[in-house]
Amino acid sequence: MTAPGSSDRVVGSTMCEFLRLFYDRGWVAGTGGGICGALGDGTMLMAPTGVHKERVTVDDLFRVDRHASVVSAPKTPGLRLTECSTIFCAIADQRKAGSVMHSHGLSAVLAADLAQGGDRVVIRDLEMLKGIRGCTNSDVHAVPVVDNTAREPELVAGIRRALDAPEFQRVACVLVRHHGAYIWGEDLWEVKRHAEVYHFLFEAAVARARRA
Amino acid sequence: MTAPGSSDRVVGSTMCEFLRLFYDRGWVAGTGGGICGALGDGTMLMAPTGVHKERVTVDDLFRVDRHASVVSAPKTPGLRLTECSTIFCAIADQRKAGSVMHSHGLSAVLAADLAQGGDRVVIRDLEMLKGIRGCTNSDVHAVPVVDNTAREPELVAGIRRALDAPEFQRVACVLVRHHGAYIWGEDLWEVKRHAEVYHFLFEAAVARARRA
Amino acid sequence: MTAPGSSDRVVGSTMCEFLRLFYDRGWVAGTGGGICGALGDGTMLMAPTGVHKERVTVDDLFRVDRHASVVSAPKTPGLRLTECSTIFCAIADQRKAGSVMHSHGLSAVLAADLAQGGDRVVIRDLEMLKGIRGCTNSDVHAVPVVDNTAREPELVAGIRRALDAPEFQRVACVLVRHHGAYIWGEDLWEVKRHAEVYHFLFEAAVARARRA
Amino acid sequence: MTAPGSSDRVVGSTMCEFLRLFYDRGWVAGTGGGICGALGDGTMLMAPTGVHKERVTVDDLFRVDRHASVVSAPKTPGLRLTECSTIFCAIADQRKAGSVMHSHGLSAVLAADLAQGGDRVVIRDLEMLKGIRGCTNSDVHAVPVVDNTAREPELVAGIRRALDAPEFQRVACVLVRHHGAYIWGEDLWEVKRHAEVYHFLFEAAVARARRA
Repeated sequence: MTAPGSSDRVVGSTMCEFLRLFYDRGWVAGTGGGICGALGDGTMLMAPTGVHKERVTVDDLFRVDRHASVVSAPKTPGLRLTECSTIFCAIADQRKAGSVMHSHGLSAVLAADLAQGGDRVVIRDLEMLKGIRGCTNSDVHAVPVVDNTAREPELVAGIRRALDAPEFQRVACVLVRHHGAYIWGEDLWEVKRHAEVYHFLFEAAVARARRA
Repeated sequence: MTAPGSSDRVVGSTMCEFLRLFYDRGWVAGTGGGICGALGDGTMLMAPTGVHKERVTVDDLFRVDRHASVVSAPKTPGLRLTECSTIFCAIADQRKAGSVMHSHGLSAVLAADLAQGGDRVVIRDLEMLKGIRGCTNSDVHAVPVVDNTAREPELVAGIRRALDAPEFQRVACVLVRHHGAYIWGEDLWEVKRHAEVYHFLFEAAVARARRA
Repeated sequence: MTAPGSSDRVVGSTMCEFLRLFYDRGWVAGTGGGICGALGDGTMLMAPTGVHKERVTVDDLFRVDRHASVVSAPKTPGLRLTECSTIFCAIADQRKAGSVMHSHGLSAVLAADLAQGGDRVVIRDLEMLKGIRGCTNSDVHAVPVVDNTAREPELVAGIRRALDAPEFQRVACVLVRHHGAYIWGEDLWEVKRHAEVYHFLFEAAVARARRA
Repeated sequence: MTAPGSSDRVVGSTMCEFLRLFYDRGWVAGTGGGICGALGDGTMLMAPTGVHKERVTVDDLFRVDRHASVVSAPKTPGLRLTECSTIFCAIADQRKAGSVMHSHGLSAVLAADLAQGGDRVVIRDLEMLKGIRGCTNSDVHAVPVVDNTAREPELVAGIRRALDAPEFQRVACVLVRHHGAYIWGEDLWEVKRHAEVYHFLFEAAVARARRA
């Protein structure tokens, strides 16, 4: 096993590899979704908006500071920074996350539907809960669901409120109704694990609700 | 990211790449489905009929004018032009589309079933609607559904009527009942995005209807 | 497009390629399922039994005559001929089929369940019916369902009866209850098309029945 | 076909290949699940815990004796032995298994749900039952379901009881409620076959229950 590298040199290429992986899972189709990863100096690499995410290369990545200001533009001309930049920074700020992924996966949308207009979806009775940092398989895991907005930057307030709420301190995910999910971790590899875990939890919750 | 090329040189090879991609998604299985792409001089490249679409190479492509007349035959002998040629040309004509794909995906068939004999399926409450040119996530997006016919050329009249209807001016898709979908865009890359977006919308609509 | 070859030289390698393809689709998992292909002299190549089908190479194939007697054993020692050999020969005989595939796909099992103990499943209202040789999209396509038996050779009588029945003359498929399907065509490439078409039809029929 | 090797030299690389295969099937996502394989001297190779299983290489494998004591650590520093080690050893001991895989597949969780708190799930009327050593397609195959525990080593007692029970002598699988499955065989290749067969059986049972 190659030691999961977090040095600046590999952050960008790992982000691109994970975008291809997420695309194969249906989480970033139709140019939706995205990912960011922190570099050693506290800046973050972010993918551009409006591009086919599985085709992104390191030359397409923006480097931004913790306030979502662009520190250096990508080598590839003509790209615009992801609309998720302020959300990514808010999550990095409030949760000390080194990486955040944004999923447009159908299972995330259907899981948020289970809240039926409410502010959370409760997931329980699943070993896979252990895959979330700090959680056990006996947890009653309430994932916050925030309402969607017209533009992504307007989501920041709702997501910040969810991140502040005492009852959501153990989650590494916020669902956005009719939209998808933001999933974070301390680094890219934890984000990969959390993304796989949460999508599994969404699929399980949706399948169990269908049967009930 | 390789700049999405639309020069004549790459149109054919991109079409073949996308056919393989669509095959992996189950949209052009069983020799069904297809794609066309415009060249700089206004002619279009089209795939042959009755072949395994994921095996098509540039040597198998027909070059046709905007009236579906063959301008140059493929290098590979013995092929016949896709039955969709007049539909492709009608959509290119009425919507100024530079590319059209034809899907035989199951989710398209099941989404059309939701119309229950009616002339449209309404899709709403999904962020992914933003992935369609000119649409927002608060749109109530009515996708036209036309009745199937014995042969594909007979579909042209129904599809032209749908394209003319004022209430369908923002769609980039027509569903054909019991059959599939035609999805278009200004170029091949927009068609790829629209194809991914619409199939996501179909899957979401079908999953939500199952639960309701 | 490489011309779909049917010369002896490529039959074996195409069979192995298709087994890998069928495995990826879930049709020959768990060492189940199989395929045969006719050579120019009327003998057939068949895969061995009890092996992981996606790993089969040309050195593992048996050459059998039209009565399922082994003409030449595979280069690889220690293999036994598929238990489907007499079924494959019966279908080749009665339908002049140049190739037959045997699917253990879940959609085939669930489609056969729809017969609820009866002797057929009726499929209709699907464009994909055109993908079956001689069929149109307005066909009411009744696929025979035969009861499973303890051993595969005992299936021959039931399958022969279905092949003889006047109402099943247009099918290229027999479903075996609780088991899977036999799907045939004039050559390997038609079998690939028919396999993709019938599995699509099975999935559509199962999805529609769930909703009804 | 490469003869399924069981010599020490290939056990490790086959285990890593199968982990990638299982990952593609969704059985070992989110760093969950695992596999072990016996060497000629009675020791076993086991994967580490808490790593992305599809990335495991032979340098990451532990060699343990039949009491789950580490005989030699992996070349890669900093790894910890899988938490499943005592379960793997218990199954190897009681069933003379040469290999065991642990699945976190959703179909295993949903199949265990079908027991509704009971101690078994009954699977029948499926040809695929033949894919389990010693079983026929007319078997009424009861798969034991044991309750989940906080930590994996605590599962050993429940699993040993299931392995001891006279009514479960023909199974090659134990389901763990809300968790997944342990599936074994005489060697790695039988484990691959059994894993494919049991997950097919789970999917079939879940689909049939949804319809009923």
